[in-house]
Amino acid sequence: MSSELTKVVALSGGIGGAKLALGLYRILPSDSLTVIANTGDDFEHFGLSISPDLDTLLYTLSGKDNQELGWGRRGETWTFMAAIAALGGESWFRLGDGDLATHVERTRRLRAGEPLSSIIDDFRRNFGIAASLLPMSNDPVRTKVQTADGPLEFQDYFVRQRCAPVVTALRFAGAETALPSPEVLTILGDPRVGIVVICPSNPFISIDPILAVPGIRTALRDCPAPVVAVSPIIGGKAVKGPTAKMMAELGLPVGAAAVARHYSDLIDLYIADEEDACSLGELPMPVIFTRTLMQSIEDREQLARDVINAAARVRR
Amino acid sequence: MSSELTKVVALSGGIGGAKLALGLYRILPSDSLTVIANTGDDFEHFGLSISPDLDTLLYTLSGKDNQELGWGRRGETWTFMAAIAALGGESWFRLGDGDLATHVERTRRLRAGEPLSSIIDDFRRNFGIAASLLPMSNDPVRTKVQTADGPLEFQDYFVRQRCAPVVTALRFAGAETALPSPEVLTILGDPRVGIVVICPSNPFISIDPILAVPGIRTALRDCPAPVVAVSPIIGGKAVKGPTAKMMAELGLPVGAAAVARHYSDLIDLYIADEEDACSLGELPMPVIFTRTLMQSIEDREQLARDVINAAARVRR
Repeated sequence: MSSELTKVVALSGGIGGAKLALGLYRILPSDSLTVIANTGDDFEHFGLSISPDLDTLLYTLSGKDNQELGWGRRGETWTFMAAIAALGGESWFRLGDGDLATHVERTRRLRAGEPLSSIIDDFRRNFGIAASLLPMSNDPVRTKVQTADGPLEFQDYFVRQRCAPVVTALRFAGAETALPSPEVLTILGDPRVGIVVICPSNPFISIDPILAVPGIRTALRDCPAPVVAVSPIIGGKAVKGPTAKMMAELGLPVGAAAVARHYSDLIDLYIADEEDACSLGELPMPVIFTRTLMQSIEDREQLARDVINAAARVRR
Repeated sequence: MSSELTKVVALSGGIGGAKLALGLYRILPSDSLTVIANTGDDFEHFGLSISPDLDTLLYTLSGKDNQELGWGRRGETWTFMAAIAALGGESWFRLGDGDLATHVERTRRLRAGEPLSSIIDDFRRNFGIAASLLPMSNDPVRTKVQTADGPLEFQDYFVRQRCAPVVTALRFAGAETALPSPEVLTILGDPRVGIVVICPSNPFISIDPILAVPGIRTALRDCPAPVVAVSPIIGGKAVKGPTAKMMAELGLPVGAAAVARHYSDLIDLYIADEEDACSLGELPMPVIFTRTLMQSIEDREQLARDVINAAARVRR
């Protein structure tokens, strides 16, 4: 990026996307990153408004993420969960005691009429995060999973049924009438943006809901900065989660190439793993190969550097 | 009580009342006690429906009460509270992680349309309590504290301002139109009830809200069993809480006698502490003196026995 192109935008879901978002956050000037997060996973549980991907980003970017579990908060306790189970309440979705504070305070403020984007902006400040963190929309968009056994709410599919049902289609209820949160359109129209990164999240359930919000796809196409996607597939497999299983069930060839094709009308560059170099075949956009597996903090930072450097080599 | 008079009813607020309720529960056959609890302290906090007196009774009768703190749950953790404070949320009302489960599950079920009495009945079963525990009403009744500085919500007065403001009057908003919970009228009309005990709770903020629910006062008057009140004042002082301070502010003589007079149209017997024997003066009902301070479990059981035995000596 040239010195005027000082801003970086990342589109992200939860765990996998947040890893690269953290890498970007750590290598960039602290206020130059904006993360646009999927809210298609959001749901109501115990009457609380839960935003799994936003919260994973909050916890990850602030260093409050639970690295042993791979989700939730560091130093978490589980007294609430044990007590709710003893009361006969539902315990399939595990809410830690500290995590619960995020949901309770968000729900209280949403009920008082505050938009989600404003609540999250306040939360990230309280968490000491200098990056901007934006929900894709302040309106409810809910991913519905069509399966061979019938339609399922997203968290029912994802958590309760551990992605076991065969997915036949995905639907983003509410997306047709949702508006992008205003800050999303502002940042995508900002001439200082040097790159838009599609994080290595699940394309179907983490990125597609963002793209389904009217106006976001157009804003990405109109954005002068190159759009770069990082493959969530390494060596033909998903690092974590149901991406590969879902591709097979949706009738797609399982692999990094199909993800690139999924984004073909949108991206200027695809970053795939070295392991997939021989199997990728011809793609309609330039491809750069690098190590994309993010195990250590250094891996996250290195991939972030590779992404930024690669983007400097493409133009729109 | 004769062998047919096998049921005992107790009217109770929180901490002090729950001590005698526990004593009664421990000395009586396990299913013979029914506790009618004050819900005038109930309030909404973080969008959660909180019932402090019912919960104190649930925790006390099930042995889950926190004896170090004197309130809340045993083995409690405080991760939620620390996290909510870090998010800039309100932290004046302390909610333990386990306690929170009670509020979250109650709120969820209330929102689904279930009456409070049914939820509490289910909770007490889950907590292994054989006694019946009844909210005075399924309709919201909210104690409002009139003070020299203006009106206050009850928990604002009681917790946030630690009972510091001078009380000029108490009002039970919603009481006029509230109905007693059906089980309350059923038990007060049950011919097997041998005694109704007014626990040593604060008369003005714990017992008066119960009596303010239309129908309960009449049911108590029509009940064939003697009504016995236990003084919350020992040696001219309240054991805990603002009872004595409030009596002075309300222009009453501070002491056990004024409490007896407060209940004079209702009770057949007054049980006061030996310490107040010389200062009590003439009262319009029979009085029995005993040790009423409940420090140990044995104290609770002994006072319960004294109450049951005393009631056997009065008739309506």
